[in-house]
Amino acid sequence: MADIGNAVFTAHLQQLLDNKTKPSGALGRIEALALRIGQVLGTSAPVLVRPQLLVCAADHGLAAHGVSAFPREVTAQMVENFLAGGAAVSVLARQHGLQLTVVDCGVARDFADSSSAPPGAPRLLVRKLAAGTRDACAGPAMTAAECAQALANGRDIVCELPGNALLLGEMGIGNTSAASLLLARLADLPLAECTGAGTGLDAAGVERKRAVLQRALDANPQAAAPLSALAALGGYEVATLVGAVLQAAAERRVIVVDGFITGAAVLVASRIAPAVLQRCVFAHRSGEHGHRLMLAQMQAEPLLDLGLRLGEGSGAALAWPLLQSACALLREMASFAAAGVAQRTR
Amino acid sequence: MADIGNAVFTAHLQQLLDNKTKPSGALGRIEALALRIGQVLGTSAPVLVRPQLLVCAADHGLAAHGVSAFPREVTAQMVENFLAGGAAVSVLARQHGLQLTVVDCGVARDFADSSSAPPGAPRLLVRKLAAGTRDACAGPAMTAAECAQALANGRDIVCELPGNALLLGEMGIGNTSAASLLLARLADLPLAECTGAGTGLDAAGVERKRAVLQRALDANPQAAAPLSALAALGGYEVATLVGAVLQAAAERRVIVVDGFITGAAVLVASRIAPAVLQRCVFAHRSGEHGHRLMLAQMQAEPLLDLGLRLGEGSGAALAWPLLQSACALLREMASFAAAGVAQRTR
Repeated sequence: MADIGNAVFTAHLQQLLDNKTKPSGALGRIEALALRIGQVLGTSAPVLVRPQLLVCAADHGLAAHGVSAFPREVTAQMVENFLAGGAAVSVLARQHGLQLTVVDCGVARDFADSSSAPPGAPRLLVRKLAAGTRDACAGPAMTAAECAQALANGRDIVCELPGNALLLGEMGIGNTSAASLLLARLADLPLAECTGAGTGLDAAGVERKRAVLQRALDANPQAAAPLSALAALGGYEVATLVGAVLQAAAERRVIVVDGFITGAAVLVASRIAPAVLQRCVFAHRSGEHGHRLMLAQMQAEPLLDLGLRLGEGSGAALAWPLLQSACALLREMASFAAAGVAQRTR
Repeated sequence: MADIGNAVFTAHLQQLLDNKTKPSGALGRIEALALRIGQVLGTSAPVLVRPQLLVCAADHGLAAHGVSAFPREVTAQMVENFLAGGAAVSVLARQHGLQLTVVDCGVARDFADSSSAPPGAPRLLVRKLAAGTRDACAGPAMTAAECAQALANGRDIVCELPGNALLLGEMGIGNTSAASLLLARLADLPLAECTGAGTGLDAAGVERKRAVLQRALDANPQAAAPLSALAALGGYEVATLVGAVLQAAAERRVIVVDGFITGAAVLVASRIAPAVLQRCVFAHRSGEHGHRLMLAQMQAEPLLDLGLRLGEGSGAALAWPLLQSACALLREMASFAAAGVAQRTR
């Protein structure tokens, strides 16, 4: 197994790609993707096996301030929709053979754990910290102990998952607010540049949301370090995802990052352990205002740019076949020599 | 079957999409894609069946002027590579279950027809007009009769193909030159804005190529109408693709357009029958200079923007799962009512 940062192995992968029967670089960013996956898995013949789509769900105290276009009960309703197979991420997981695991990290309704569901069927893990976070406008959204437990939950969940690829998803009415707060605080960016329409607020709604978020920042002035900011401004699903990302990176899994909220979890994780970014593939540039700035913070170049702003892991699932293509091209394309194709003459 | 342009049916499809359990428009351009496929196939439950990837290959008289970074024999060598399974498009066709049909429309080497290959295996159809076009710098690249025959070949090939989706690909050393010439002539654009590096010319090479192409334009001043321009400046593979596009559009197949050269074929076809564009999905924005202008001529918004510049149909194959996703989402996502999910409150 070659290590990330192993310049010799990286040069070997690049040479393999350059010798494939195509003009140099003609597969564009698919070549960079193949290089990335080869580096993460430490092989020049990468095979993605038993991909896992992990959707973490929770409710948010901030939702009481009307920061979302949708009512809070939609979080629980969508969890049921994920499990019943009717949500976008359910459809896409079926299409691509992604094992869907939904985690109740803190939804304001109780669910029965279905971790013993038949293989292939969606299942729900109950890892609930509380029935939603506290109101961040009045102090930290969660305690340090809750945040640590959520991180541990995320790590433990990934430890139990098979495969070498983890796709990230989330659900939580109000969680673009948590993601905007984390971006503003950790990247020291103006809140207005980090705040968007979420599920579809109008301009006045975004303005009200921004004012609420400013109160949350003001109520948590001390929360500057990554874990402190995560506890004060994040959500249970975000914190669980941070733990999942740290564990998956440590296990050298390919991590497929969805959009704005999972991106915030990766941002937090990368401020704790910068090398996690070397394990990540960013699926898409979201339509959510602020995502561009968030991606820039991580020097991330996403694969798709389709104006998606749904979350759930839907963008990660849509991009998934591109990862499989990159692996197949690296494994299976013939070299100029093997195929008897002439090289360039000028 | 609802007709394209049937406003009632389009509104019905849009309403179905708007009632799916997601914020309105949150699947971004995947929603427009679902609408497009639903319109082409005339159904709100589209299923793409037996997709066909048609790769037309030919040689070009212009190649003798050194307009490509690769020698002319690479056209035939890549045809063999397609059939042997080592090319990018071979790998991607296997990944996605696309039936690969390669057509010798005018390659400068003779191949044995393998149209009776076992189902699923790549096969070669010999529909050769000549061993490469004539030099367009000295007059028309092909005769009007050859051009008409190539169009008829393309139509006949598609008639024999099963399924309701056609992905377009091509191979031909020198064929970005033909595509640039067709774009410049049909869109009346400056040649420099239509001419790029192809398989990888340096700046001086592009300048030499542009000078050669100017001679070709000057040698064919009368070739202004679509078919006349196609015969004078195009290639046998491009003309065969034009016929294939016209037939596929008439049969209401979903046409997946790859990059710059297949785009030129669709541009020609759309100047003959503008409605063909309503059957098309544009797979990607190529790294080839001029493709942006070509797409603008057809008001096309491609799905991917990954710096691909390989051709072969590789971009069409990479984008293919997005079409399948769009269909699955339209067919299988639950509505708010069916899933018992609350709608927006503000």
